[in-house]
Amino acid sequence: MRLGADPPVRRADASGPDEVRRANLSAVLRMLHVHGPATRSDIVAATGFNRSTVGALTSELGRVGLVRERPGVVRGKGRPSLVVEPVSTGVHVLAFDVTQSSVGAALVGLGGYILQIRRRLHGTSPQDVAGVVALVAGLAEEMLRRAAPGSVCLGLVVSVPGSVRQPDGLVRRSPSLHWYEVPLADLLRAATGGAYPVAVGNDGDLGVVAEHLRGAARGSRDVLYVRGEAGVGGGVVVDGELLKGAGGYAGEVGHIVVRPGGRVCSCGARGCWEAEVGDAAIIRAAGRDPRESEIEDVLSDVAVGNRRAVAGVRRTGEWVGTGLATLVNLFNPAVVVLGGTLGALYPTMEPALAETFARALGPIREQALLVRSELGSDAQLVGAAEVGFADVLEDPLGTLARRGAAGAAAGAALVPHPHLG
Amino acid sequence: MRLGADPPVRRADASGPDEVRRANLSAVLRMLHVHGPATRSDIVAATGFNRSTVGALTSELGRVGLVRERPGVVRGKGRPSLVVEPVSTGVHVLAFDVTQSSVGAALVGLGGYILQIRRRLHGTSPQDVAGVVALVAGLAEEMLRRAAPGSVCLGLVVSVPGSVRQPDGLVRRSPSLHWYEVPLADLLRAATGGAYPVAVGNDGDLGVVAEHLRGAARGSRDVLYVRGEAGVGGGVVVDGELLKGAGGYAGEVGHIVVRPGGRVCSCGARGCWEAEVGDAAIIRAAGRDPRESEIEDVLSDVAVGNRRAVAGVRRTGEWVGTGLATLVNLFNPAVVVLGGTLGALYPTMEPALAETFARALGPIREQALLVRSELGSDAQLVGAAEVGFADVLEDPLGTLARRGAAGAAAGAALVPHPHLG
Repeated sequence: MRLGADPPVRRADASGPDEVRRANLSAVLRMLHVHGPATRSDIVAATGFNRSTVGALTSELGRVGLVRERPGVVRGKGRPSLVVEPVSTGVHVLAFDVTQSSVGAALVGLGGYILQIRRRLHGTSPQDVAGVVALVAGLAEEMLRRAAPGSVCLGLVVSVPGSVRQPDGLVRRSPSLHWYEVPLADLLRAATGGAYPVAVGNDGDLGVVAEHLRGAARGSRDVLYVRGEAGVGGGVVVDGELLKGAGGYAGEVGHIVVRPGGRVCSCGARGCWEAEVGDAAIIRAAGRDPRESEIEDVLSDVAVGNRRAVAGVRRTGEWVGTGLATLVNLFNPAVVVLGGTLGALYPTMEPALAETFARALGPIREQALLVRSELGSDAQLVGAAEVGFADVLEDPLGTLARRGAAGAAAGAALVPHPHLG
Repeated sequence: MRLGADPPVRRADASGPDEVRRANLSAVLRMLHVHGPATRSDIVAATGFNRSTVGALTSELGRVGLVRERPGVVRGKGRPSLVVEPVSTGVHVLAFDVTQSSVGAALVGLGGYILQIRRRLHGTSPQDVAGVVALVAGLAEEMLRRAAPGSVCLGLVVSVPGSVRQPDGLVRRSPSLHWYEVPLADLLRAATGGAYPVAVGNDGDLGVVAEHLRGAARGSRDVLYVRGEAGVGGGVVVDGELLKGAGGYAGEVGHIVVRPGGRVCSCGARGCWEAEVGDAAIIRAAGRDPRESEIEDVLSDVAVGNRRAVAGVRRTGEWVGTGLATLVNLFNPAVVVLGGTLGALYPTMEPALAETFARALGPIREQALLVRSELGSDAQLVGAAEVGFADVLEDPLGTLARRGAAGAAAGAALVPHPHLG
């Protein structure tokens, strides 16, 4: 059942030949980008297009440098089928992941290939917006200098642990960065001279997109992703689409209530999940002082079998399980992916976590597979890159013409997840 | 951004002329069903079809008795435009709402018109499945006898407060009915002689569909619905689509954790929202014994201004607000609709509820409008009817041919929300 009649219905044959061609090119390029190299026969099978249509489409994508063909391996008798692959050096996205302590950066080529990657600690205090902006701009320049000659930059996309307003990339609140109402996209556009589109996304949203497309939840259409990163962020994929909500702020898993009257959270309320299972709570439970120790110290303690740390982390697992039970009762996901601190400590937390997670309703609990992130700290970079690739995947030739020609189409706005709204 | 390439991509021009015709008829009928009578010009504007196409489509729908045309009101000069309206007596759905104490029944015509409605108390204990099945079958027969001659029955759809497996309509668990693993659809099909398709849905899911299409959340694409009915059920519409989850069990809002170590819930765990704000908790808070009193007694106490009852209900509002804060932080809805007991008592709960609801994150709280259900106890009936209409809205002529001709297509399965999965 489709609900409602808005947005306005359109007749099925409304699209003209240009629109059909765009949609067909989009379908082929998206398939290759997400699933990797494929023979023409694979493309025929997956798209339902006939052989000559596939040939024409791949030739056209090849002409503009987005894909290339090479002879495949000979299986049995007969000619080898041509293998079509995305050209990772044809177009790229500059992807960034800002955390409380560091900035991760990657230059990601078409097909999701990470061509360059680095991570730098903040030299400054986290609330120093200008310092982070300069760091991102510097890393962008550095990576672009080393990019393949002729490769077209489709955009710069930054992940932040906080609520981000779309489409303008205003960071409404990021307690772990101490940022409030920071116009990050505007600042980055100014710092990079408007040379490419700029977008900002929430770390949980980008993480779930990455794990869904290329990580631990590949092949699942209903995914919950939870990331421990100073606080606790998350994102949800519902029936193959990112959950956004009315204003794009959905998925604030760190602020579900698990313990009314509990510790004060970064949001000012008491007893949020984040206050019980965020890094500070884990450090405290492991017997350290969060003002003096960092989560890495706890990871080391656990790694060497420090009993107090192990017991404390395990206890925290009870609260992790309690919060996860609430979340799966609401979303009924097929896969729950734990990333960041929670992914790293999952094996230690598991026994206690399983006990409280068991409170989830039977039919729902049976279906939820709990796994650790496969992409780890790369998840946000991979997810950010997907936002940057969205336009070229939707309209390969048109986007290339705009980006390739204009180069510095100053002020062009790259809207995260434009097709999810 | 569209995520992933599954289900398999299809070229935009894959549909043949039959498919185009079906889609166009579907678009026009859906518009009239959801939004009511419209002039041909309205249809032209909403669908983007040209005038002659609209004329042909409405004629075809008129020929099979799904719509009819009548002269409209003359505005200014010129000929009056013809008004096209859905024929409420052309096709209908038998809709039922099973609660802990009663069975609601309605015969709903195309366009969502409730043509007959009644509600009967269970004569038997709630766990008596056979009694409820017999009551539903009896009401169905009674309503069909009074249906317009020639009106085609599209199906029988039942709302239950519990987790329902799709597509077979097995009630996995319904604590308030004391039903576990009850094959309700099968039992109803047997009891009604397989005369029409049968489906079973969750009361929260059907409620949110109804409020979204025809109630307090009309025009909003992101909606949270919460119903107090013995326990607490709910449903979520995300970007215009019902949230289902991997197995169709999503939206179990009654079992989010709000008070670890709190009261034992119907699910066996402690501190679920339902245990704190369900009918039993409200009766207790209002100074009555849930074994002796019913929620209606509390409603009466509050209506006459009984101080103890008012104070108790208000206190419960704190927990309602706490749970709603968790939910809006996750779903970022534009509208939150309170139904059942919670809708009825909202004005009394409001001050305390607003205080705890304030813990929701600022950007999200600003966007969430809290309202009472407009459809009240009819919501489940209206939502159930929509499930029954889904097929005819998707394929008007094909569905009519199958239902009209076969009449008793014994064993035909009506799957709730077939286009949401």
